[in-house]
Amino acid sequence: MNIEVCFSPLSYPLFHNPNAIVVVIDVLRATSAITTAFFNGVSKMIPVATIEEARAYKENGFMVAAERNGEIVDGFDLGNSPFGYMNSRVKGKTIAITTTNGTHAINVSRHASKVVVGSFLNLDILIEFLRKEKREVLFLCAGWKDKFNLEDTLFAGAVAEGLIFKHGFNSNCDSTIAAMEIYKLAKHDLFGFLANSSHRNRLQKLDLERDIQYCLTPNQCPVVPVLEGKFLVKSSFTL
Amino acid sequence: MNIEVCFSPLSYPLFHNPNAIVVVIDVLRATSAITTAFFNGVSKMIPVATIEEARAYKENGFMVAAERNGEIVDGFDLGNSPFGYMNSRVKGKTIAITTTNGTHAINVSRHASKVVVGSFLNLDILIEFLRKEKREVLFLCAGWKDKFNLEDTLFAGAVAEGLIFKHGFNSNCDSTIAAMEIYKLAKHDLFGFLANSSHRNRLQKLDLERDIQYCLTPNQCPVVPVLEGKFLVKSSFTL
Repeated sequence: MNIEVCFSPLSYPLFHNPNAIVVVIDVLRATSAITTAFFNGVSKMIPVATIEEARAYKENGFMVAAERNGEIVDGFDLGNSPFGYMNSRVKGKTIAITTTNGTHAINVSRHASKVVVGSFLNLDILIEFLRKEKREVLFLCAGWKDKFNLEDTLFAGAVAEGLIFKHGFNSNCDSTIAAMEIYKLAKHDLFGFLANSSHRNRLQKLDLERDIQYCLTPNQCPVVPVLEGKFLVKSSFTL
Repeated sequence: MNIEVCFSPLSYPLFHNPNAIVVVIDVLRATSAITTAFFNGVSKMIPVATIEEARAYKENGFMVAAERNGEIVDGFDLGNSPFGYMNSRVKGKTIAITTTNGTHAINVSRHASKVVVGSFLNLDILIEFLRKEKREVLFLCAGWKDKFNLEDTLFAGAVAEGLIFKHGFNSNCDSTIAAMEIYKLAKHDLFGFLANSSHRNRLQKLDLERDIQYCLTPNQCPVVPVLEGKFLVKSSFTL
């Protein structure tokens, strides 16, 4: 089973593969928030591309999350901080969500045969899920506004390392090699490695060090969010 | 002076910066061939996008190089093997050239204020040239058919390391950090590090190990090719 890593939603058309399962990655913070939401009992999420769509859902009575440039958009209750979803009020709810990068990446890949959501929070269960799927895997890093970023690359490297070294997957793709090499360098201190990264600096200015620490701590939320039509739902898969 | 690294011509519009000097990189093999050509006395080169344009130059009596998928295109004398340019017949000539990735990258960036050509063959003189320019630098990796590749990334990392550690340049760009980290891992054995890379495997099948060894050996051709209008010429800059 072959693995590829796509560093930006802009490049997705070059990698589209009808046989592959797509793992969408936006570690800081959309896919970490989504993983946390399902772990805390959210029923469904609806990833939408624009603030206008998000507003329409809000006017129709939905709970709605909207983030742009790291901050909650005026008029919305939730953003993409995972801590916003650790709350009993989200239990059983359907939440529409739009973020700067993560929901864009989900929308770009929605015609793949299967799309799942990855973050360090569901690292081990995701590796196990992909192993059992026995299919090619395409990691789609959300990046920052279509540019490469380090934290999504590190996570792609973490999963690729697990699948290749332990479960017989393979890759002949340079971006997979790069992701695995960078993960190997960073894995013992993800937080330290990212100290100089552009997005961590962006979030530091917003005083979000607690979010970053949480998002970089593996296996706190063993659930696999999967796209079904326009909804993200929690897969029935368990460890 | 800020440094950015763009991993693919597809992403160039996200990075375009009117103040920056663009370094186009296609280590295996277009920018290595171009650097070698100027070191061996070629007068001008004309990078063109298509085989049709190349053919038109040929019909008008020019010496023309054309490569696609690693091989010389039927009907042309030269491809992108640097060894093709180590020949007295190229001295003083104007050569039109089209390649799978490298000339595409040059064409994508041709509206930048200055475009130069980089390869391991001109590593040290390029660092010195950029230091004296005292401007922002954008490394444009040609990649492989708009996908990320390792060898161009390694070279961007090599130059970035020189500029940042020795000459006071800086970067807050994740792709620069990634390129420098990967170069740090690979620098003592570039050939070995690239053993599993996709493009080296592609060239291995074409029996081009000698080309790869040459292209990965720094500082054999201390010249800086620079774009002037539609021509690449040799900069008057010397070490």
